[in-house]
Amino acid sequence: MGDGEFDLIKSLRESLSLRRLDAAHGLVEGVGDDAAVLRQTSELDTVITTDLLVEGIDFTLTGDEKTDASVIGRRAVAVSLSDIAAMGARPRWLLLSVGVPRKLWERGFARALLSNAMTYASDIGVTLVGGDISRTLEHVVVDSIVLGEVERGRAVLRSGARVGDQIFVTGSLGGASAGLKILEGGRVRQSHSGARMTSATRGLVARQLQPTPRVEWGALLGERRLASAMIDLSDGLSSDIMHICRESRAGARIEAASLPLDPLLESAGITGDDALSLALHGGEDFELLFTVSERDARGLPSQLDGVQATRIGEVTRERGKVRLVRDGRARLLRPGGFDHFGRTRR
Amino acid sequence: MGDGEFDLIKSLRESLSLRRLDAAHGLVEGVGDDAAVLRQTSELDTVITTDLLVEGIDFTLTGDEKTDASVIGRRAVAVSLSDIAAMGARPRWLLLSVGVPRKLWERGFARALLSNAMTYASDIGVTLVGGDISRTLEHVVVDSIVLGEVERGRAVLRSGARVGDQIFVTGSLGGASAGLKILEGGRVRQSHSGARMTSATRGLVARQLQPTPRVEWGALLGERRLASAMIDLSDGLSSDIMHICRESRAGARIEAASLPLDPLLESAGITGDDALSLALHGGEDFELLFTVSERDARGLPSQLDGVQATRIGEVTRERGKVRLVRDGRARLLRPGGFDHFGRTRR
Repeated sequence: MGDGEFDLIKSLRESLSLRRLDAAHGLVEGVGDDAAVLRQTSELDTVITTDLLVEGIDFTLTGDEKTDASVIGRRAVAVSLSDIAAMGARPRWLLLSVGVPRKLWERGFARALLSNAMTYASDIGVTLVGGDISRTLEHVVVDSIVLGEVERGRAVLRSGARVGDQIFVTGSLGGASAGLKILEGGRVRQSHSGARMTSATRGLVARQLQPTPRVEWGALLGERRLASAMIDLSDGLSSDIMHICRESRAGARIEAASLPLDPLLESAGITGDDALSLALHGGEDFELLFTVSERDARGLPSQLDGVQATRIGEVTRERGKVRLVRDGRARLLRPGGFDHFGRTRR
Repeated sequence: MGDGEFDLIKSLRESLSLRRLDAAHGLVEGVGDDAAVLRQTSELDTVITTDLLVEGIDFTLTGDEKTDASVIGRRAVAVSLSDIAAMGARPRWLLLSVGVPRKLWERGFARALLSNAMTYASDIGVTLVGGDISRTLEHVVVDSIVLGEVERGRAVLRSGARVGDQIFVTGSLGGASAGLKILEGGRVRQSHSGARMTSATRGLVARQLQPTPRVEWGALLGERRLASAMIDLSDGLSSDIMHICRESRAGARIEAASLPLDPLLESAGITGDDALSLALHGGEDFELLFTVSERDARGLPSQLDGVQATRIGEVTRERGKVRLVRDGRARLLRPGGFDHFGRTRR
């Protein structure tokens, strides 16, 4: 870590009185040296993830710098928190690398971004321990690195699903991608017209810009060994279930009628095939998709902190094949989510 | 981790047969899930650092894509390895976030960069365990995250220097910044003229583009508890010694005649005040600057793997002040290295 960022992060942290929190969280020496030092214990494994968000690809600046800094910082952290949750781990530490053009730097953009991200992380019990700051020629980039911990050997992988396991998803589906289409001025059929946003469209846009990672669900599923496999919905259900199937050498049957559509979709006039398609192929809901053995499914809480988990299907022996059951007919469901390079629709 | 990068990193790793190495290195589940899982032990602390390198600021593309990808990948990793060494820790794991414009992506630039970085890291015993890949609109960005391990409580901080401790530096000074000036077509006086590079200027450019982090020195100084404080020379000696002084609430006296000038400087015709200035204020040599108690200094090897450590001064009680002794006269040395934001000279 260099010194610009060292001083900045240090001063931000001091303003948040994070030092006492650190001791409780196993941070030996955090901010202010060449690297942060984290204490290990023999009972835990560390999980680590990194997510790069790029202006013009993952987000667009609206011109309202205060909002932009806050939204981008929070979103970057949320995406990484979701990865940690998907491992059944509890997030603990955060590092942020931020690149901003000089003009934005001079207006305090990096400080605002870091400060917002840190406050958001801190509310979830995650401590900012380092990062890097650089100028860029033109665009904002943010790399978010989150470390979490999980009891030794209890990390939930994509590869643990067994035939007969029940498939669950937290929260609701399709909202984030509807929000993206609204932001892009896309052609989602809506009951309202004109430029004014209804509260439903505003809510969908928020689902896109400010995703809520399912931190508590992830930690619970790991700690209680309930999930046999798990992934977070970043690419879209049809793509992400395929990852579990491929890694677990199994198949899946999904029941269309069971999918928990985002209630804002209907409020915004998005129904029928449009809504189903968003729920199946829309990405970035950052819900958790996980499998549970039939026995363990009985011990699964139906909700946690107000967030439901819904049974949407079952793991089958039809290796690498996902079937969607709708109106009594099962058809093959192909991955239809994001093309990961470029994050554009296929 | 998404899937583009998951598949890419997985295939790169398989081609390097890294799986067996992983088991020895405490990697439980590395590449291919939402996050990498690393095993903790109660005898170790984890150290972590992140460094963001940005096209147009930290490097310029020369148009030779193969060279560019290789140089940038290696440099990004080297900078982070140097941070880990400066903590007295041994580097273990690497994550790389890479952003490239579509044109370069299509030519395999990201794959070449990752592949080169991974091979370089692997030679040092460091395993690539994750990362992220994104498109950018225009410029290449690389964020390098390295995790290392150190015996519990033995991380070497900047704050541990005591009055009377001897100050040492590994390797030689001034080469990297001379190389930067040559690259920038700067006004360093040189014995040769014209566009053809001599082997000395080529060597200096390599010191800039391909720094060698002092991994073995760092690990030894931590393991044997020899260094009381340490930092790597990224900003320049005059700036970096000040960080140790500030954090250790002490001062320093540096002897100009003892500074190990890069021998390539003289070969390139850079001598006298020019050479001294580069050694004092030039950044990015990525040597280790450390302090050792008088007693421990006797146990310090004079070299390790062919890299010397040179005594260059002493820690004093003149808090926050660094003095340079030259021709018997001591004058105040002010930090004159990089302005960290923007990495341009002050």
